[in-house]
Amino acid sequence: MKKIHTVLVANRGEIAIRVMRACNELEIRTIAIYSKEDRLSLHRYRADEAYLIGKDKSPVDAYLDIESILRIAKNREVDAIHPGYGFLSENINLAIRCKEEGITFIGPNIEHLAMFGDKINARAQAVAAGLPVIPGSNGPVHSIEEVRDFAERYGYPFIIKAISGGGGRGMRIVRSADSLEESYLRAKSEAKASFGDDQIYLEQLIENPKHIEVQILGDQHGDVIHLYERDCSVQRRHQKVIEIAPSISLPEKLRQEICAAAVKLMKAVGYISAGTVEFLVTPDQKFYFIEVNPRVQVEHTISEMITGIDIVQAQLHIADGASLNGDDIGIPNQDYITCNGHAIQCRVTTEDPANQFMPDTGKIAAYRSGGGFGVRLDAGNAYTGSVITPYYDSLLVKVSTWGLSHKSAIAKMKRCLSEFRIRGIKTNIPFLYNVVNHADFLSGHYYTTFIDTSPELFIFSPPQDRGTKLLTYLAETTVNGFPGIAKRPKPSFSPPASYMPLMRRSLTAPNKSWTARDRKVWYPGLKIKKRFY
Amino acid sequence: MKKIHTVLVANRGEIAIRVMRACNELEIRTIAIYSKEDRLSLHRYRADEAYLIGKDKSPVDAYLDIESILRIAKNREVDAIHPGYGFLSENINLAIRCKEEGITFIGPNIEHLAMFGDKINARAQAVAAGLPVIPGSNGPVHSIEEVRDFAERYGYPFIIKAISGGGGRGMRIVRSADSLEESYLRAKSEAKASFGDDQIYLEQLIENPKHIEVQILGDQHGDVIHLYERDCSVQRRHQKVIEIAPSISLPEKLRQEICAAAVKLMKAVGYISAGTVEFLVTPDQKFYFIEVNPRVQVEHTISEMITGIDIVQAQLHIADGASLNGDDIGIPNQDYITCNGHAIQCRVTTEDPANQFMPDTGKIAAYRSGGGFGVRLDAGNAYTGSVITPYYDSLLVKVSTWGLSHKSAIAKMKRCLSEFRIRGIKTNIPFLYNVVNHADFLSGHYYTTFIDTSPELFIFSPPQDRGTKLLTYLAETTVNGFPGIAKRPKPSFSPPASYMPLMRRSLTAPNKSWTARDRKVWYPGLKIKKRFY
Repeated sequence: MKKIHTVLVANRGEIAIRVMRACNELEIRTIAIYSKEDRLSLHRYRADEAYLIGKDKSPVDAYLDIESILRIAKNREVDAIHPGYGFLSENINLAIRCKEEGITFIGPNIEHLAMFGDKINARAQAVAAGLPVIPGSNGPVHSIEEVRDFAERYGYPFIIKAISGGGGRGMRIVRSADSLEESYLRAKSEAKASFGDDQIYLEQLIENPKHIEVQILGDQHGDVIHLYERDCSVQRRHQKVIEIAPSISLPEKLRQEICAAAVKLMKAVGYISAGTVEFLVTPDQKFYFIEVNPRVQVEHTISEMITGIDIVQAQLHIADGASLNGDDIGIPNQDYITCNGHAIQCRVTTEDPANQFMPDTGKIAAYRSGGGFGVRLDAGNAYTGSVITPYYDSLLVKVSTWGLSHKSAIAKMKRCLSEFRIRGIKTNIPFLYNVVNHADFLSGHYYTTFIDTSPELFIFSPPQDRGTKLLTYLAETTVNGFPGIAKRPKPSFSPPASYMPLMRRSLTAPNKSWTARDRKVWYPGLKIKKRFY
Repeated sequence: MKKIHTVLVANRGEIAIRVMRACNELEIRTIAIYSKEDRLSLHRYRADEAYLIGKDKSPVDAYLDIESILRIAKNREVDAIHPGYGFLSENINLAIRCKEEGITFIGPNIEHLAMFGDKINARAQAVAAGLPVIPGSNGPVHSIEEVRDFAERYGYPFIIKAISGGGGRGMRIVRSADSLEESYLRAKSEAKASFGDDQIYLEQLIENPKHIEVQILGDQHGDVIHLYERDCSVQRRHQKVIEIAPSISLPEKLRQEICAAAVKLMKAVGYISAGTVEFLVTPDQKFYFIEVNPRVQVEHTISEMITGIDIVQAQLHIADGASLNGDDIGIPNQDYITCNGHAIQCRVTTEDPANQFMPDTGKIAAYRSGGGFGVRLDAGNAYTGSVITPYYDSLLVKVSTWGLSHKSAIAKMKRCLSEFRIRGIKTNIPFLYNVVNHADFLSGHYYTTFIDTSPELFIFSPPQDRGTKLLTYLAETTVNGFPGIAKRPKPSFSPPASYMPLMRRSLTAPNKSWTARDRKVWYPGLKIKKRFY
């Protein structure tokens, strides 16, 4: 009785591959779309069929081209479209057009996209369901006077947010009356520039909060369950960097209250598919609803690891009309879902942490990942020879680790991160390693301000990439010869002691005879010409 | 109070890396050894230090050089030696020499290596502990007359085994009196040739058995627990190919009896460290003890995945004197260990299944593995640019998948196997895919004879490797020019329909204009010169 046999994945990179994997396991045919910039991207080749889209559009706009996507979907008799995250995932127009064309949109109903896409409405729904919300303007504010009234009533600091915003863009913190007017005007103009909508609203600023979110699954028959919570407090500029599941710092009672609140809201609105209810938790253990993400999230992996439930497969089954407690999804009730062990996700990006996280681009000269027990890798174009372009998000691979204890999950993450060898392109791995190696990360004593207030996270030595240097040197001497060799001292067969601290792993036995290759490595006269860098 | 700070791993390949990973997570320093043939092997670089060993020995003998290993261990002030599996893992001399030198041997006591290395003694221990054993000669037989007496008493078929044998070598099945004498003489001479010991013993042949084994952990304080069973019935020439955990075909009562029997034996002998008790289970649900493997096994991964317990870390803790129920290992009692979901392990080898599993060697031109939810990879030298030598076991990567159900673990395995792209070297992946895709594998209705009696498993089309072919062609025309281009028809821009079935994944939209690259791919005159293969 299945209706979904072919799915078009309207996305790219790792999430496109993630969705195709779920389809593949359910024997659903997959269709990829790709921009001309992504013609060599792996997601194209992981699909059963792939089609170029938005040939005349910008790299990002290609993936936002709803009508072209629908044309391919109809042409190839696609049953359903999965939008992944980002791009069109929360775009109400895609959902509407899918409905018009009789194609299933794999995600929530149109009304829920509308409801949670509008932060004011989302807040109203939370209030209606009895969830605590952050004291705020309860709607858009239209004048500086309204802002001043709010400041008088609730005090400083407070925060100005764009109604159409998200991901930290268009946000301004106001700490005193001095900066009130400037912040108001800037927030409006930023909102206009970023989202084409200059409406803003106000909220009290919660100091030192934890970002706790609850993973939800709802079916078309009114059943809603949660897959426990994630702690996503490790953020940089309001972007999540590392997530853990479950939270280790919430008292059990608070944890249960938050999960129950999330289910209550989603049941109240009749939510369908995967979604996330996000909360801020204060140091004195109050929690406030902030928003709902009506889609699968980057960090869904860790909830899968602690519950065993495949969230993307569940989305596909739900879209096909299956009930949560039926055979396909197989969750008879909430109590059936156990929270087993602890998981961590690190987002490995092609960004240079030593240079303000500037995105790096180019060809990956060498790629070896970590692996082994408790390691899950969700990669996009992460392999030797892959070309990282500047056009899209810099996410390279999501590294998730699992252990029976939080400590063991961290040990596995540290081990796995240190096993990665990526050459030809810079990554944020040294930075991620510092975070998971931090005492506060182990203890759970960190807030969303953790990265900003911990400068020690930015102290690291970038990879030496000795292999590339050596190869460059060998290539140079092969081509150009050994300059001035007659004047140089005879190669010494033992490395000077001062070189040793450079080596993290000594490759040769002390007091053993050195091979020709070793001598080349350690020859003290070794200098590589500057122009080769 | 930890005594183990530095571990020498006396092995190579994936198990050496596996052990180093466990050490790394416990912040134990690792020391690798490598033969000159393995000078570029990954296990060397994954260690904190690595030393060349057995320079003048054969590739395998280098890793069997106990005195050299101990010399490095003492030189580097190693606290313990982990032997992995194979090589010295069950070598009593290494354990004895470690004891003499005051170095911890990470494995069972010397007496248990001796006990279980001798199959007759192992059987006697099982009988003493009240375990059912296969009716047999209860010791070596010294003459053809004893064999005839056995045949008269127990009937045919029976099996002649080498006392020092293992892994299926030196075994002869006797189905009638006609072949009795020949089989006896051959088995003795094979045993002599293979193991330097011509002693043989007899056992009734169990027809259509399942191979079920129980993973055991025992500490130095008399505590023994099991981590449930594995079904390793998918074997080729008595070598395990695919393993699952838990078994899906045993009735729950039988499963519990078998696990309890394994614990009973290991408690009776005071077993220490990780070990496996192996059984044969008949179609009418009798079970017989066959042997104990006193080491970590290739397939330990899947028991880790269903229980969450890191077996190699447990070995390290046990060797350090920790008790199972202490904080380090953290298993208060048997009931604490849950069996969560289902796991499968496939051994991906560099063997050509289309050519009698002949080991293939050479450089890996391209390597992309599967990944995502529920996938665990334990790789040896598996990466782009790696050179596979003919000197060692052909295991390339162990692919383990996990799902809440057996069906879902299989779906993940099929998906993951199909994601692999390995070029430059042949692998057994097409064969493994056929096995996990087989209806009997799904249902659990298979015995150790499954592969031999299922010729359909050997029907597959080898990878086309179109990429390499195309690159070779482009290289040839770049160098040699286009031969006889004047006489050829003008390139046609649409591929002839007959080419389509070759494509598993169509890369371009129908009725779209073709790029220059696509025309090259599909140009019907394309012929690559034979000499380039």
